Amino acid sequence: MRYKAILAYDGTAYHGFQRQANASPTVQGVLEEVLSSTSGQQVSVLAAGRTDAGVHATGQVVAFDLNWRHLPSDLCNALNANLPSDIAVYLVEIASPGFHPRFDALSRTYVYRLYVSRVRDPFKRWLAWHLSRPLDVEAIAEAARHLLGTHDFSAFGSPPQGDNPVRTVYRAQWEVTPDGGQHAFTITADAFLYRMVRRIVGALVGVGRGQVSVKQFVQAAAVGVQIQGAMAAPAHGLTLTAVQYPDGLDQ
Amino acid sequence: MRYKAILAYDGTAYHGFQRQANASPTVQGVLEEVLSSTSGQQVSVLAAGRTDAGVHATGQVVAFDLNWRHLPSDLCNALNANLPSDIAVYLVEIASPGFHPRFDALSRTYVYRLYVSRVRDPFKRWLAWHLSRPLDVEAIAEAARHLLGTHDFSAFGSPPQGDNPVRTVYRAQWEVTPDGGQHAFTITADAFLYRMVRRIVGALVGVGRGQVSVKQFVQAAAVGVQIQGAMAAPAHGLTLTAVQYPDGLDQ
Repeated sequence: MRYKAILAYDGTAYHGFQRQANASPTVQGVLEEVLSSTSGQQVSVLAAGRTDAGVHATGQVVAFDLNWRHLPSDLCNALNANLPSDIAVYLVEIASPGFHPRFDALSRTYVYRLYVSRVRDPFKRWLAWHLSRPLDVEAIAEAARHLLGTHDFSAFGSPPQGDNPVRTVYRAQWEVTPDGGQHAFTITADAFLYRMVRRIVGALVGVGRGQVSVKQFVQAAAVGVQIQGAMAAPAHGLTLTAVQYPDGLDQ
Repeated sequence: MRYKAILAYDGTAYHGFQRQANASPTVQGVLEEVLSSTSGQQVSVLAAGRTDAGVHATGQVVAFDLNWRHLPSDLCNALNANLPSDIAVYLVEIASPGFHPRFDALSRTYVYRLYVSRVRDPFKRWLAWHLSRPLDVEAIAEAARHLLGTHDFSAFGSPPQGDNPVRTVYRAQWEVTPDGGQHAFTITADAFLYRMVRRIVGALVGVGRGQVSVKQFVQAAAVGVQIQGAMAAPAHGLTLTAVQYPDGLDQ
């Protein structure tokens, strides 16, 4: 039987989601171990998004094949009882036999969190990017609007070999608390290039600091002109929050 | 010169605030080391509250004597540059020579955080107490009201030797998000007995679960009748958020 699960993890302690030959722990590695020890079967996990080291998730979707005699909710409880406290499973359900969390996904949503404060906040140290000085949020919002639609996004990342760099962004929204302290950038796209969200956020912060003009950003977003000196935002501000599937495969 | 500083820390990694002979690290130990290495002087720190292991602070107040030729704000910056990422100094200012953060305090405010959710949240694992089942918040609010005023609080903690167990509670407020998920209990008192906040929260959760009656709680709060089987809430949900001083000593 193929199962689908939705999980959350604090990525701080992990070398990313994907199991690797020479770096551990990984979220996949820990999850497969706990699935195997819980069921007594060798279990391999497929995931919707291969989050990088330090990147978090509240809506990662995985699939795996398992012979399980009890309810999916019993499996969910058993996994939560055995997983470390930085990984939790929100839902386990039976999926269609061919369900693939990555190939079947229509889109993914990430949220990037930042905060502006003279002094760093100990409670945000693994969860949001600390900036000392205020950002020009209007310029950022103006720039971010140009991410929407279908473009060549190669200014913000490289596609896997042989793939093309065109992606479709459905939502790109920069929100900030009234005091200008807490910022959250939400982006939904059919798929993302390598480090695309972090590179977009890095460039948008450049816009907000006046180091990158809105025009430069628009040319990068619209026609793939590289922004000189633009950096990727640090991993720890990023969270994979949801993966969208066609009706019937939907979470 | 005597200085006053306000600090925040994530208490997860520490054996409480206070320096101890046979347990380290402590927040005081780390702070004194960084103060000493920054200034080249031996520095001892006085604090408003001796938070337990795992307890956090966003408004701990400390005082220390130091010869410092630069601005207090330069000291603040130097400390933040040298402290580990789980401790931050929000403010350093010159205090009156005899200022004592504990003895001069009029009152202290703590917040205890809980959340109710079928599955534990990896991002709250060090910051809020996880409960699986909903609480009767009306019963809790009804009970919490009886904490206000001057009472014998020995049902919720022991006073230091020779001290009396009478304390005055100025504020005791249980707040919950509309969905019933996030709970925060704010309590301000002139001073607290050992583990008093955690024992009050433990008893209030007992009320919210129907294990302790409002009447039992009221008798405990008003006249010090012990509640059989009541437990202290875990340390990690607790944060010292502010210390109040008379005008002129005020933060």
